Amino acid sequence: MKNILLTLFILVSCGTFLIAQRPSVISPEVHPDNSVTFRFSARNAKSVSLDTEILPKPVEMAKDSSTGVWSITIPPVKPDIYPYSFLVDGIEVNDPNNTYLFANEGFKHSLVDIKGDKPLVHSLQNVPHGKITYCSYQTAQDRTGTLLIYTPPGFDANGKTKYPVLYLIHGGSDTEETWTKVGKANLIADNLIAEGKMKPMIIVMPYANTGLMMQSAFGTDMINKIIPYVESNYPVLTDRNNRAITGFSVGGGATLNIGLMNLDKFAYVCAYAPYVQTPEFRANFGNWNPDVAAYNSQLKKLSIYVGESDQYIEIVNSAVKLFKEKGLNLETMYVPGGHTWMNCKLFLATTLPQLFK
Amino acid sequence: MKNILLTLFILVSCGTFLIAQRPSVISPEVHPDNSVTFRFSARNAKSVSLDTEILPKPVEMAKDSSTGVWSITIPPVKPDIYPYSFLVDGIEVNDPNNTYLFANEGFKHSLVDIKGDKPLVHSLQNVPHGKITYCSYQTAQDRTGTLLIYTPPGFDANGKTKYPVLYLIHGGSDTEETWTKVGKANLIADNLIAEGKMKPMIIVMPYANTGLMMQSAFGTDMINKIIPYVESNYPVLTDRNNRAITGFSVGGGATLNIGLMNLDKFAYVCAYAPYVQTPEFRANFGNWNPDVAAYNSQLKKLSIYVGESDQYIEIVNSAVKLFKEKGLNLETMYVPGGHTWMNCKLFLATTLPQLFK
Repeated sequence: MKNILLTLFILVSCGTFLIAQRPSVISPEVHPDNSVTFRFSARNAKSVSLDTEILPKPVEMAKDSSTGVWSITIPPVKPDIYPYSFLVDGIEVNDPNNTYLFANEGFKHSLVDIKGDKPLVHSLQNVPHGKITYCSYQTAQDRTGTLLIYTPPGFDANGKTKYPVLYLIHGGSDTEETWTKVGKANLIADNLIAEGKMKPMIIVMPYANTGLMMQSAFGTDMINKIIPYVESNYPVLTDRNNRAITGFSVGGGATLNIGLMNLDKFAYVCAYAPYVQTPEFRANFGNWNPDVAAYNSQLKKLSIYVGESDQYIEIVNSAVKLFKEKGLNLETMYVPGGHTWMNCKLFLATTLPQLFK
Repeated sequence: MKNILLTLFILVSCGTFLIAQRPSVISPEVHPDNSVTFRFSARNAKSVSLDTEILPKPVEMAKDSSTGVWSITIPPVKPDIYPYSFLVDGIEVNDPNNTYLFANEGFKHSLVDIKGDKPLVHSLQNVPHGKITYCSYQTAQDRTGTLLIYTPPGFDANGKTKYPVLYLIHGGSDTEETWTKVGKANLIADNLIAEGKMKPMIIVMPYANTGLMMQSAFGTDMINKIIPYVESNYPVLTDRNNRAITGFSVGGGATLNIGLMNLDKFAYVCAYAPYVQTPEFRANFGNWNPDVAAYNSQLKKLSIYVGESDQYIEIVNSAVKLFKEKGLNLETMYVPGGHTWMNCKLFLATTLPQLFK
């Protein structure tokens, strides 16, 4: 099978450049026991290391002096999708033999998908699939903004069904594609809908880096542009009880800013590892004096989820403390792991069944 | 402005990793005169070159020993979108500071967009925009196949309008996203529709690497799975006069195989730099004895477009010669340039206004 794949790669690695341009190596190669071999062809490099979100620190790879291919096999890994990159003489590069890239503006990691024996909540399964539509809208600054819109299986744009809407926001250097391409939000929804565990809903994933740290410009777009765009173009329920907002990291901070400052718009506000050290958060919540009873009666869910070893755990905990001290009904969940998209998938799969019930 | 951008990058290059992980450099930087500066931070590298589809061969970059940043400025470039990569001590890497990547399975080039003063046919302009929807279907091998479907501005899934359909196939190591992300097929269509130069149509862009060199497996899927999927899920015209097939490189070869072997299905068959050195092409056309009158009366368009310096020009010309010798009405267009997506955009913008008239 490996030889077939190698031959295939050589012949198919054609396309724009029909002749394969580099020694063809297979990387990453996930073995049946979930151990993984990573390979990188670099005859002249002095050192090549593997940097992953699987192992706590970069590990040296070994060079085959006859082929010039560096490789390492790491022990069995818990099935999930993990970012990694190579450090080649100290320079970080992604894996040229792996199509699967992390969608991000600040770094370019490759991803390895350890599928395991049983389908995971984010796995592509043989269930009805929703669609993802790339839409555009005019931002408040008169730019063309991008939105990804997940519609559930069986969606009929002109049918009688009206759907609730989740607004799902990426992290600070991510893109509008990170929640689908890395976070697998569409497959998680497909699978949970197929199991009858969540309500069919529309999930809106906007590009959110329209202002520094997703502060006011993005919030303005969300309220004045994105929600109106969705509500005039999709068959959706438009009351606050059928609107949720959720986001990760800087997008989690934006979720708290936008969600809690617009109680008339959102009944569900769920932040994943929210990064809240921003002037906007301080302006909103520094001397906040909320009508706690109104918040607690109107919010069907206010939650903060975070990994216990998240590098921003103190910042996240400061937000937890703030909202608890104010007397808000805040649900928290602490799980193993860090500020990762492995946890984002878990957080989303935990949230979706709780929305719009 | 540059300082603002730098600051922005440092602060926003956060997201999953909130702290910027590398020296923040701007690359590529397109100057007002369309010259371009490329930069790459690699203090320990011995040599860094820039490899582009702008210049005929890689050029050495110079290192600033104080910052460790390598850079080069190239003279003004004709506005277009060009692939490039860096060769760092002989290892090809994409530009870590550039979000814009070439969607491809075999290589990972970055793209630089030289916008110029006037909007180009592929530029994002202030016109109504269509949408791109990511759909899935079951392939003949019972896998989940991916399709991108462009619907034009004003599209109404349940309206009275029925649309003609263009099936648009990528090159051999490209992906289903290459025609939109690199070829800008959606923006080209948006712009031509806004100018009244083409008929609003649905454009279907399937992932086509389902068989070696897009041979029989993909053709079977196209006829038995993809067309039926589109026709049962979208409001489309289903007669041959309202179906076109077009593709680039290996996808151009597939276009000729699928289009000409299924005259009952397609009235428009347009190949861009078709790569035809495949067993399937030989089997189909090696001893081909077509009903030339039927082909010439039923095909509203059979065309082959290619760049004069395409590295496969001889292979393309062998197909041109074959079809001309058989007596088919073949339109050809030879333009400057090579086997590139700069030319693909030109070819598509030339084809679209001619379809379904």
